[in-house]
Amino acid sequence: MSEKTSSAQIGVVGMAVMGSNLARNFANHGYRTAIFNRTWAKTEAVLTAHPEAHFIASQTVEEFVDSLEKPRRIIIMVKAGAGTDATIDTLIPLLEPGDIVVDGGNAFFQDTRRREEKLRAHDLHFVGAGISGGETGALEGPSIMPGGSEHSYTYVGSMLEDISAKVPGPNGDEPCCTYIGTDGSGHFVKMVHNGIEYADMQFIGEAYDLLAGAGLSAAEAADVFAEWNTGDLDSFLIEITSEVLRQTDARTGKPLVDVIVDAAGMKGTGTWTVQESLTLGVPAASIAEAVFARAASSSPELRKAARSALEGPDGTVTVEDRAAFVEDVRQALWCAKVIAYAQGLHLIKVAAVEYGWDIDVAACARIWRAGCIIRAKLLDRISNEYAANDLETLLEAPSIKAMLAEANPSWRRVVARATEAGVPIPGFSSALSYYDLVRAERTNAALTQGLRDFFGSHTYRRIDTEGTFHTVWSGDRSEVEAVDTH
Amino acid sequence: MSEKTSSAQIGVVGMAVMGSNLARNFANHGYRTAIFNRTWAKTEAVLTAHPEAHFIASQTVEEFVDSLEKPRRIIIMVKAGAGTDATIDTLIPLLEPGDIVVDGGNAFFQDTRRREEKLRAHDLHFVGAGISGGETGALEGPSIMPGGSEHSYTYVGSMLEDISAKVPGPNGDEPCCTYIGTDGSGHFVKMVHNGIEYADMQFIGEAYDLLAGAGLSAAEAADVFAEWNTGDLDSFLIEITSEVLRQTDARTGKPLVDVIVDAAGMKGTGTWTVQESLTLGVPAASIAEAVFARAASSSPELRKAARSALEGPDGTVTVEDRAAFVEDVRQALWCAKVIAYAQGLHLIKVAAVEYGWDIDVAACARIWRAGCIIRAKLLDRISNEYAANDLETLLEAPSIKAMLAEANPSWRRVVARATEAGVPIPGFSSALSYYDLVRAERTNAALTQGLRDFFGSHTYRRIDTEGTFHTVWSGDRSEVEAVDTH
Repeated sequence: MSEKTSSAQIGVVGMAVMGSNLARNFANHGYRTAIFNRTWAKTEAVLTAHPEAHFIASQTVEEFVDSLEKPRRIIIMVKAGAGTDATIDTLIPLLEPGDIVVDGGNAFFQDTRRREEKLRAHDLHFVGAGISGGETGALEGPSIMPGGSEHSYTYVGSMLEDISAKVPGPNGDEPCCTYIGTDGSGHFVKMVHNGIEYADMQFIGEAYDLLAGAGLSAAEAADVFAEWNTGDLDSFLIEITSEVLRQTDARTGKPLVDVIVDAAGMKGTGTWTVQESLTLGVPAASIAEAVFARAASSSPELRKAARSALEGPDGTVTVEDRAAFVEDVRQALWCAKVIAYAQGLHLIKVAAVEYGWDIDVAACARIWRAGCIIRAKLLDRISNEYAANDLETLLEAPSIKAMLAEANPSWRRVVARATEAGVPIPGFSSALSYYDLVRAERTNAALTQGLRDFFGSHTYRRIDTEGTFHTVWSGDRSEVEAVDTH
Repeated sequence: MSEKTSSAQIGVVGMAVMGSNLARNFANHGYRTAIFNRTWAKTEAVLTAHPEAHFIASQTVEEFVDSLEKPRRIIIMVKAGAGTDATIDTLIPLLEPGDIVVDGGNAFFQDTRRREEKLRAHDLHFVGAGISGGETGALEGPSIMPGGSEHSYTYVGSMLEDISAKVPGPNGDEPCCTYIGTDGSGHFVKMVHNGIEYADMQFIGEAYDLLAGAGLSAAEAADVFAEWNTGDLDSFLIEITSEVLRQTDARTGKPLVDVIVDAAGMKGTGTWTVQESLTLGVPAASIAEAVFARAASSSPELRKAARSALEGPDGTVTVEDRAAFVEDVRQALWCAKVIAYAQGLHLIKVAAVEYGWDIDVAACARIWRAGCIIRAKLLDRISNEYAANDLETLLEAPSIKAMLAEANPSWRRVVARATEAGVPIPGFSSALSYYDLVRAERTNAALTQGLRDFFGSHTYRRIDTEGTFHTVWSGDRSEVEAVDTH
């Protein structure tokens, strides 16, 4: 252990790559940083590799805790789940009232709520901080979404803001970190961030399928994405799509994308987002389609059986005017992306009411502008629109609705063309159906209610009067007022 | 209490309408039936209303248990959730080893697994029985999906089969009840049944929207559905759709469907189906779209904001040949319905492996042919195909794939027309995208894997060799073999 006993300003538990990079990020910003790992070998390797960080390293958790200034600030960077609970249980008896524990892992927000409550009973502060940006972000500046007591943010907020990504603003650099709300709110917002990321990637994949279907080579598609990255679609994911599509496989000389197995993995946060949207009754089908498309891609037996059985068009898109088609696809991609954001932000809004969080949606969009995977020029617009207007949905933001009005004919053409050509577009079409569903004067839900009343006496409401009603379908088909629904 | 002490063959707990109707159904089949309700007044009302049933009624649960033959057979028909647990806890100390408790409520299958384990520790048998058919079905013959030990089925199976719906077969009436599998399997299958029901109703609603968009009045649409009910679409839901659309509102003289508030309710089983499909990684997006469409319909603030903000076509479908269009919609409806069944049955297949259930999918389809809400002619075909073939997916069944090959051009025309006209068709289009996704030779998941490797070093597999690989995107962009994925 170093000689600087009791002098570290921040401590990081967990020296896997995310933890060590975050610790180095703190050190790079001039913070005296303590580090600890369950096995000393990992800590030692980090010490050896990064002498410039002057880490204060401990072999035991007791020494680690003793090495920190009070109130102590500890960030846990271990694999989310049982490891987080085990770490917390180890720390609790060693900490003193007022100490602050930050969980920087990808925790499920309900676990964060439970842990926050547990630590609160010990007069300890627990901050569930969503951190996005991967290994590079952890080192160079991630987007950070901390949830916990406002009191705890006064102790850790400025440090987290210091190490976060920055966006140049009129009054200097703006940090991609802000106080989100109490208990699980930070991890909830991070979860939705990931759900949007799934949708974003699915839409990009559909756009690529359409370009490929129209005859563009991977390299030509790379050029198209590079061009798109200079306009409204400017974003990290569009940028690296261009990079990936441009990559040539050294072994075969083919585009790399053609030799990668087309079975997409996932790690759970997209699934959680959709499950939570279902629990809260918030329509978020475009995110669901993205998650299910990954699931389908990773179902080899299903695909094998379906491939040999099913007939249909082969995905070739016949295009007369390639430039016009590419522009239509660009518009469709932008529209679908907006829908995914609208659904994700709506989910945050509803969750905030459900869980008692005072979340500033504009601020969420603001801190996603750099550091994280979904960073995009569009987030400037979204943040400004939420800051300037009291929005029920992103879709009613003045500049957004205007662009959707202009772009939706392109979007429709793309969905229709893909449908005829047999290109699977679950994301584009789901997003468009949402657009058409929420703007409809009347929906088929009236018929659904009629059917439910018929087979289950579930009753219905009328548009012209209060109360709930039931038609005596099995009798004289008169209408009766119902006392309760069941 | 009646004088026939210890003589009842079956006991029903819970005298709400489902419970009393089920008890009457047992009595109608000649079983000496005991009844019990937490409050005597409800029991008394049932006794008064149905003297013909000769119920053996008890005021206390002790008397009720004593009124049953051993091993006792008890069916719990109370509101699913805490009420079920409370009832079970009351019964356990009064029962003896070998007694059988059946839960006929809409329990979540994981609760059923938990309860089965709990009762097993007391040497009691617990049967989670999904029951579909609503109040009428409970009285006249429901579809019953019992899960539990095979031993317990030898005691209650024939009674449940007796009161279930019947389908005339070559060797006499076939009951719509069969042993499903152990513990939660029966409630799981019932849950999926309900998920399919949601999708079925959503597709019917989309078909109606398209017919209405093409200018058909509700009465004309009623005629179309009635006509469809004589062919491949023959089913209870199509039949009652015709009835509901034909209904005129007495107050206004308008079609009833036009005065019902278009906000659809739901009770959770559809939501569970989608959440479980996400947990198991089984693509079931058409069911998800149906659940989300109901959620959207019941989001008045969202719809109000979107209605005033969003522009697009008004849902009018311009049709030159009405008969041809109606036939296209019929084909699209049939195709989408097949996809929902394929997704639901695939979910059952995967769940059976996950939870160790030996489920006969053909038998599930067979017992859905009568009594339940999704009863349909199509289920004959599905049941026969699963019985005759070892199917990974329904879509590879010989007669199914042939009909899909023939019908998919109609389906595509309908999706394209709806897309241009602004008719929301989340179900039709999601189902079609699934069709095109699972039959695709290659999918955009390869690009997704490339992107995930770029931003998160998630690695990818190659189509031409074993192992997992990573491209050093931040370095010289060479490819390296990865030892583990993370």
